[in-house]
Amino acid sequence: MAEFSPLVSELIEALRCLPGVGPKSAQRMAFHILQRDREGGMRLARVLAEAVAKVGECRYCRILTEQALCTICSSGKRDRSTLCIVENPADVYALDQATDYSGLYFVLKGRLSPLDGIGPAELGLDCLEKRFCEGEIREIVLATNSTVEGEATAQFIAEMAYNNAIHVSRIAYGVPVGGELEYVDSGTLSHAFAGRREYR
Amino acid sequence: MAEFSPLVSELIEALRCLPGVGPKSAQRMAFHILQRDREGGMRLARVLAEAVAKVGECRYCRILTEQALCTICSSGKRDRSTLCIVENPADVYALDQATDYSGLYFVLKGRLSPLDGIGPAELGLDCLEKRFCEGEIREIVLATNSTVEGEATAQFIAEMAYNNAIHVSRIAYGVPVGGELEYVDSGTLSHAFAGRREYR
Repeated sequence: MAEFSPLVSELIEALRCLPGVGPKSAQRMAFHILQRDREGGMRLARVLAEAVAKVGECRYCRILTEQALCTICSSGKRDRSTLCIVENPADVYALDQATDYSGLYFVLKGRLSPLDGIGPAELGLDCLEKRFCEGEIREIVLATNSTVEGEATAQFIAEMAYNNAIHVSRIAYGVPVGGELEYVDSGTLSHAFAGRREYR
Repeated sequence: MAEFSPLVSELIEALRCLPGVGPKSAQRMAFHILQRDREGGMRLARVLAEAVAKVGECRYCRILTEQALCTICSSGKRDRSTLCIVENPADVYALDQATDYSGLYFVLKGRLSPLDGIGPAELGLDCLEKRFCEGEIREIVLATNSTVEGEATAQFIAEMAYNNAIHVSRIAYGVPVGGELEYVDSGTLSHAFAGRREYR
């Protein structure tokens, strides 16, 4: 059976570190770069090495950045008394694009999951508590995912906030906009019904 | 609106050189590497740079390889009198995995397409003709795609082979194995019917 040359096999294997890339896609990507876009491949290699070496996290919110403070935390236009707490860095960009929220963020990079060894320290909750104590933050919005672990994490952080007399809210559960009731799962429906609001 | 740090944006942009990777997947890949697999990212950067710099093509068959001759052309176990002609390097591996063909291959890296400036020279047909003249090759199997350009290319190469008294065959068109007649397009059906063979 025909085999790829050692370097080509190694490239195909290395491309599989990307999420959602199986053997077939990796092969397609390797051939594409080597046949049609060597310049792009060279650029990707250079940027990737630089990013892996230099990108760390923002000292305040743990967003990925190569600077000490991310653009959000260092911005003068943001309301520094409100903090939105999310699980992943991608959530920050999703929320910021969709809403007019203008406060700061805090990225947990995970959720409480004692069985996997993820406790408060791994999520940076000690730093968060310190910031709660400092008194600058007056309101937090809990935007962790609506899974069991996400809920437990929200609950834990809410307790911390209550102890510092900080106002706590949670993003709303309900029927997705544009969705049809008939296809919505019962957990969501039950939340949507229980969380109904005055019609204006 | 929140912005990625310059290096993170650059990484997301650079990942888009990969085929089938849009803005969302690129963002997901960048976050995955930076949050969960820096080692894999570093390895990918290194292998990618090395492959782009070193991988060229086999002197005989134009398969991608970093050696002068690919493993197929340098193998002593292959039948050197038969040459299978394909459009892309990936076709070589697909055919070699699926069939018991044991001859050599020749990769065109494209098909005749005068409007796009792809003529016989771009496909290496001059080298191919020289090999036809040398007399080692006694049979060729045309495995270009069954598109208009693929057909034209096959026709062109067949003429070259006839001039050197080389036996020419073309891989069979027909109904895909496991397919249902009802869903097969009419061009394929017509080829399958015209190309019917004695039932044994």
